[in-house]
Amino acid sequence: MHSRTSDTLIRLGADFHRRGWVLGTSGNFSIVASRDPLRLCITASSLDKGRLTAEDFLEVDGTGMTVNGTTLRPSAETLLHIEVVRATGAESVLHTHSVWSTVLSDIHSAEGGFFIEGYEMLKGLDGVTTHEHREWIPILENTQDMKALAVQAGSLLRIRPQVHGILIRQHGLYTWGKDLDAAARHVEILEFLFESVGRRRMMEPAIEKNRRH
Amino acid sequence: MHSRTSDTLIRLGADFHRRGWVLGTSGNFSIVASRDPLRLCITASSLDKGRLTAEDFLEVDGTGMTVNGTTLRPSAETLLHIEVVRATGAESVLHTHSVWSTVLSDIHSAEGGFFIEGYEMLKGLDGVTTHEHREWIPILENTQDMKALAVQAGSLLRIRPQVHGILIRQHGLYTWGKDLDAAARHVEILEFLFESVGRRRMMEPAIEKNRRH
Amino acid sequence: MHSRTSDTLIRLGADFHRRGWVLGTSGNFSIVASRDPLRLCITASSLDKGRLTAEDFLEVDGTGMTVNGTTLRPSAETLLHIEVVRATGAESVLHTHSVWSTVLSDIHSAEGGFFIEGYEMLKGLDGVTTHEHREWIPILENTQDMKALAVQAGSLLRIRPQVHGILIRQHGLYTWGKDLDAAARHVEILEFLFESVGRRRMMEPAIEKNRRH
Amino acid sequence: MHSRTSDTLIRLGADFHRRGWVLGTSGNFSIVASRDPLRLCITASSLDKGRLTAEDFLEVDGTGMTVNGTTLRPSAETLLHIEVVRATGAESVLHTHSVWSTVLSDIHSAEGGFFIEGYEMLKGLDGVTTHEHREWIPILENTQDMKALAVQAGSLLRIRPQVHGILIRQHGLYTWGKDLDAAARHVEILEFLFESVGRRRMMEPAIEKNRRH
Repeated sequence: MHSRTSDTLIRLGADFHRRGWVLGTSGNFSIVASRDPLRLCITASSLDKGRLTAEDFLEVDGTGMTVNGTTLRPSAETLLHIEVVRATGAESVLHTHSVWSTVLSDIHSAEGGFFIEGYEMLKGLDGVTTHEHREWIPILENTQDMKALAVQAGSLLRIRPQVHGILIRQHGLYTWGKDLDAAARHVEILEFLFESVGRRRMMEPAIEKNRRH
Repeated sequence: MHSRTSDTLIRLGADFHRRGWVLGTSGNFSIVASRDPLRLCITASSLDKGRLTAEDFLEVDGTGMTVNGTTLRPSAETLLHIEVVRATGAESVLHTHSVWSTVLSDIHSAEGGFFIEGYEMLKGLDGVTTHEHREWIPILENTQDMKALAVQAGSLLRIRPQVHGILIRQHGLYTWGKDLDAAARHVEILEFLFESVGRRRMMEPAIEKNRRH
Repeated sequence: MHSRTSDTLIRLGADFHRRGWVLGTSGNFSIVASRDPLRLCITASSLDKGRLTAEDFLEVDGTGMTVNGTTLRPSAETLLHIEVVRATGAESVLHTHSVWSTVLSDIHSAEGGFFIEGYEMLKGLDGVTTHEHREWIPILENTQDMKALAVQAGSLLRIRPQVHGILIRQHGLYTWGKDLDAAARHVEILEFLFESVGRRRMMEPAIEKNRRH
Repeated sequence: MHSRTSDTLIRLGADFHRRGWVLGTSGNFSIVASRDPLRLCITASSLDKGRLTAEDFLEVDGTGMTVNGTTLRPSAETLLHIEVVRATGAESVLHTHSVWSTVLSDIHSAEGGFFIEGYEMLKGLDGVTTHEHREWIPILENTQDMKALAVQAGSLLRIRPQVHGILIRQHGLYTWGKDLDAAARHVEILEFLFESVGRRRMMEPAIEKNRRH
């Protein structure tokens, strides 16, 4: 990985940690190193993303195996990154785990997802040019079988290629982009939208009450 | 633009970004460079306002066209800045896009706005000298036709010259001031008031319940 | 004022601003310079408390008049500081203006205040040694007649000398202490308690619903 | 104590203070210095944990008495740290006092605790390997008799050795770990979970309403 890229990821990790999006050892970040054969640079397992160093990244192949001699262990979630990269053509995948994404992914799990629509901020998502857009946020049931989850995510993305992120129930967000900047912007945009949707919901009982009067 | 002004705008951008008011590439900031003919210094389109540099500003004329040789693109929202400057005589216009302004602009859109009254903090708005003040926060329906939106904003400001800010539905806040400091203070004051109004609303069901007992 | 004291106040102002307790030009801070005759060092009017300098303080006498040649204007709220210092014997008075204090001061204004009880954090208030304490938070109706408000605050403090803070409706908190550190700790403690009381209230409809089932 | 350990605790204190988890003089941190005989390094009483220095720690024996000549006073809560260390074999105990833990510890006190289940973030707790985990968060009634509270905590931990933290009603969290890093991670994980549980609860009235329609 270029040192500029690892510098950006280290800065991003510290920033995301400060904002509560990668607490504990949650979250992981990846970048495509090559397409053919597929090689992914990805944060190693079980690290505090708020204090990454240039030594905390490893390279994996298209099956999730490490390709350069390293003692670092790839995260089980590596397979999901690979599926996302394959299905979307993205150059970078970011997994975060905020309070708002966790709560919304639980509340809407029975419906398999929820729509976000009408927000100007949606235009921060690649390819969206108007607020008159209906973004489906799919939710996958959480499981420790990451292979199965990766397959599900891949299928989902082939059926709904227009989505910009996937929530795993009570487990947070996967989003991606044509480069690291786009992926990081998608995290910021989606987190803003989740917080807006969540706070709006909290106000609904008061709004409805006012309407009745 | 004076380098002191661009320094202030760069600092403001970083501060507003940290507070969640200009996430993604949302928000834009302008300052009147001259009145006759009208010249506006404004942040270029599609920038992360948290990391502005002195090269990220451009100058436009009263029709929103760039006036000095530059490769930067003016934002579509430039027209709205120009209308505000014309209608209010303000020297600076700031557009921000927080969660609270977004949510309130949606909840109250059917009424075309809402009142904020009784708050001491209202005295932070230019010309307001008592908390016994009723500030109307108008809400305009969002549209991608910025020319139409700018015309609407201009008309609104001529009918209601006493307002200090306009919300665009699910799109955030425009506010202004007799100088950059006043405009920045208006953002801070209005954001405080939006958060206060929003949190108060969330408590209403509990308050009403207590009253009934 | 000793330069160490002004350094502490400057640091406090920046810290309180970052935490949203002195936005706009709200808030003011004072320290007793002498008791006999009464002299108070206090922040001048209309300043951003997040960016104080050593030149932003002035000295007033027991009537609120400036005593050293200065062009700075004392805030109208100076009279309230003087009354608090007189009634409580405090060496420092801090006025802050947070969202939570603003909202609670509005919700409970009809009852003239509210109780906070059972919280361990109450022990952070001077003289409180157990969580089995019932702290009355009095609320005074807001007015622009600061002389009248100061008189009311003085009377209240003589009737209820055990209180540690006063809320002004939709206007924030006055608290104090035997020194600047104690006063600053009281701000922090009371803000924590206001936020706890406020968030608990927001959960009440859900709690009651669960109890009924 | 090794200077590296005190450096870590000083950094932790500043970080926890910034996040609102050790406001006022709340919270205390301990590390086992030796097991046989039991010696604990612990923060002294009544300190602002946001500004600790290397001189703010003292050593106590298994009865909570200071063992080296020091003028510092051990906190009354020292006994609780000792009981936790004895009952769990932990090498570090951290007591924090956030808004969310305070509110939840009050709301669920009648049931003696509450379950947190289904969250991926639970895997950040030592020994938890799947989100299909049901973590019991016990709540002890608060008291100023710290000896009695320590005995209760010890009994509780012997009956329920699998818990990772204890809430004291309206008084915050005790958690621990096999080293300081694990204990600090447990604070971060549990705080995330408390906030998630709390915000989810706030949305429940709106969710239920939607289900009925």
